[in-house]
Amino acid sequence: MSLRRAVSVKSYNCIVIGIDLGGSAIRLSTVTGNGRLRFSKRVDISGRREKRYILASMKANIEELVSIEKDHGNVVRAIGIGSPGIIDLRRGAVITSPNFRDWKDVRLKAIIEKSLKLPVVLDNDANAAAYGEKWKGAGRRVNSLVCLTMGTGIGGGIILNGKVWHGADGMAGEVGHITVNPSGPLCNCGNNGCLEAYSSATGMVRRAAESLRGGRRSVLKRLTAGNISDLTARMIYDAASNGDRLSVEILADAGKYLGIAMAGLINILNPEMIVLTGAVTGAWDFFMPSARREMNERAYRVLVERTKIVRGKLAETAGIIGAAGLACNLP
Amino acid sequence: MSLRRAVSVKSYNCIVIGIDLGGSAIRLSTVTGNGRLRFSKRVDISGRREKRYILASMKANIEELVSIEKDHGNVVRAIGIGSPGIIDLRRGAVITSPNFRDWKDVRLKAIIEKSLKLPVVLDNDANAAAYGEKWKGAGRRVNSLVCLTMGTGIGGGIILNGKVWHGADGMAGEVGHITVNPSGPLCNCGNNGCLEAYSSATGMVRRAAESLRGGRRSVLKRLTAGNISDLTARMIYDAASNGDRLSVEILADAGKYLGIAMAGLINILNPEMIVLTGAVTGAWDFFMPSARREMNERAYRVLVERTKIVRGKLAETAGIIGAAGLACNLP
Repeated sequence: MSLRRAVSVKSYNCIVIGIDLGGSAIRLSTVTGNGRLRFSKRVDISGRREKRYILASMKANIEELVSIEKDHGNVVRAIGIGSPGIIDLRRGAVITSPNFRDWKDVRLKAIIEKSLKLPVVLDNDANAAAYGEKWKGAGRRVNSLVCLTMGTGIGGGIILNGKVWHGADGMAGEVGHITVNPSGPLCNCGNNGCLEAYSSATGMVRRAAESLRGGRRSVLKRLTAGNISDLTARMIYDAASNGDRLSVEILADAGKYLGIAMAGLINILNPEMIVLTGAVTGAWDFFMPSARREMNERAYRVLVERTKIVRGKLAETAGIIGAAGLACNLP
Repeated sequence: MSLRRAVSVKSYNCIVIGIDLGGSAIRLSTVTGNGRLRFSKRVDISGRREKRYILASMKANIEELVSIEKDHGNVVRAIGIGSPGIIDLRRGAVITSPNFRDWKDVRLKAIIEKSLKLPVVLDNDANAAAYGEKWKGAGRRVNSLVCLTMGTGIGGGIILNGKVWHGADGMAGEVGHITVNPSGPLCNCGNNGCLEAYSSATGMVRRAAESLRGGRRSVLKRLTAGNISDLTARMIYDAASNGDRLSVEILADAGKYLGIAMAGLINILNPEMIVLTGAVTGAWDFFMPSARREMNERAYRVLVERTKIVRGKLAETAGIIGAAGLACNLP
């Protein structure tokens, strides 16, 4: 009787692997069915990004984690992968990836399933992060949220009724490329005035660099030793912390346009919560006042008052935990 | 046996009443379970908008329709009401209405249910129209769509997985108040650069009037006999049809900003379809070229290619049919 119970608990004790396929590192962890990280690995891939190397490295590291869990008497049940780029959910393929230029329609799900003999769920990295924050992070107690990952670019994931809203083609949530100012600066995507052009690290660096090249005085010039192309978002944050006017303006503008985008999201989706995560949120105190001002002005008052705007709680583990969570819910 | 079958068919033959509570008229119809209109009534209320009068008139007309159906051997099972304004879904109340200034937290659902002894579902008029187009109109074959009702104002309804997405507070879909240009013209809502300020009838009239007052030459001046405050959207359409430059520009701008908003909706929600309905869509050929141009530039290419942009099929009956459809699906 006690044996049967032990077996039954075991079969419910879902251990999965969550994978965050980033541009400079692959991060993998085994994760319990209640979202606790167990064993983690980080593979630096900044030097080598060829498809063969990445795939071989993923497989080897998954195998190692499976084997470590086996030594602890646990069976890995499934694998969840969050990948940037355009994902074909139905076919489990990465159509294009901003990080890996030689990836064209890579059927990652099938490749890993075949090699590891485990079910795989593949999703967009921002969707995985959004699901992570919903499952075990800031959004645990809500059923609908929009999560914005603000880093090099701006990604987004939408959770409705507790599930990722994928849209008709699996590509919903591209919040970074909402137009927030039709005549705004050029974005990486080729358009003008996307949110990403103002409020991502890349966007802020580009805008600051342009001001410097235009002759604007700022401590940033000294921080880059005159080499403007060495400018980083971190420098802008440090300069703002020391009162540099240009840097404060750039961060306030990032907030202003974030506020416009959030007002739009609130008026369209009326979510319970907006979760902001990613490296840029380190500058919270510099961009949130203007973000809130703009949002309060532009969204329906009653909605703005009810929508919680919070920082993510899982930081850089949101993607891994979310990918694991998606794998736990595999049909 | 044949009697039992007849009874059983009868019980499945859902007849409901759909009601569109407009600013100048209440329109009511009995509607079959497959969305066919049967008996319709239209009550002009442009002269009398006091709450008591409206409610009494609604009740009397519902009773009459119930009695007409009874004479035909049918039983009305439920009532669906689409109302503009801020609706509290849970309490079935109209919190505020742009049409009826003396309506403050009117518990319409309870009032009609108590009086008519029939279950009532109350929803936002744009949600009802969106559901109508999904149920029996342009969106019959899709599961996700955004419907924009372009008239005096711009309303919106979002259908996901075949159902209205209401959001956390029942107020999702306020597409008319997305900011499409932060420094754009003043909107009725008090903000600047909302979609409604460019692409609604009111917005276009206001922009044209400002140009005329600023000394811009246009045939519109003659059409209004110099009295610019008499300007209507219809006049702008007629003038554009005769090549009036200002009117063509106003309509092209309406399209441009509509395109920016649609690009945002596509990037955020990745719906299968966007349905445009309402009086403004009569000027389709004038605003759609610029709308498509802007949308194609600003939304993800692969998504834009797949999203169908279509005119509504139910015209002014979308709201009634949708309200009836929502009533049919009453729990």
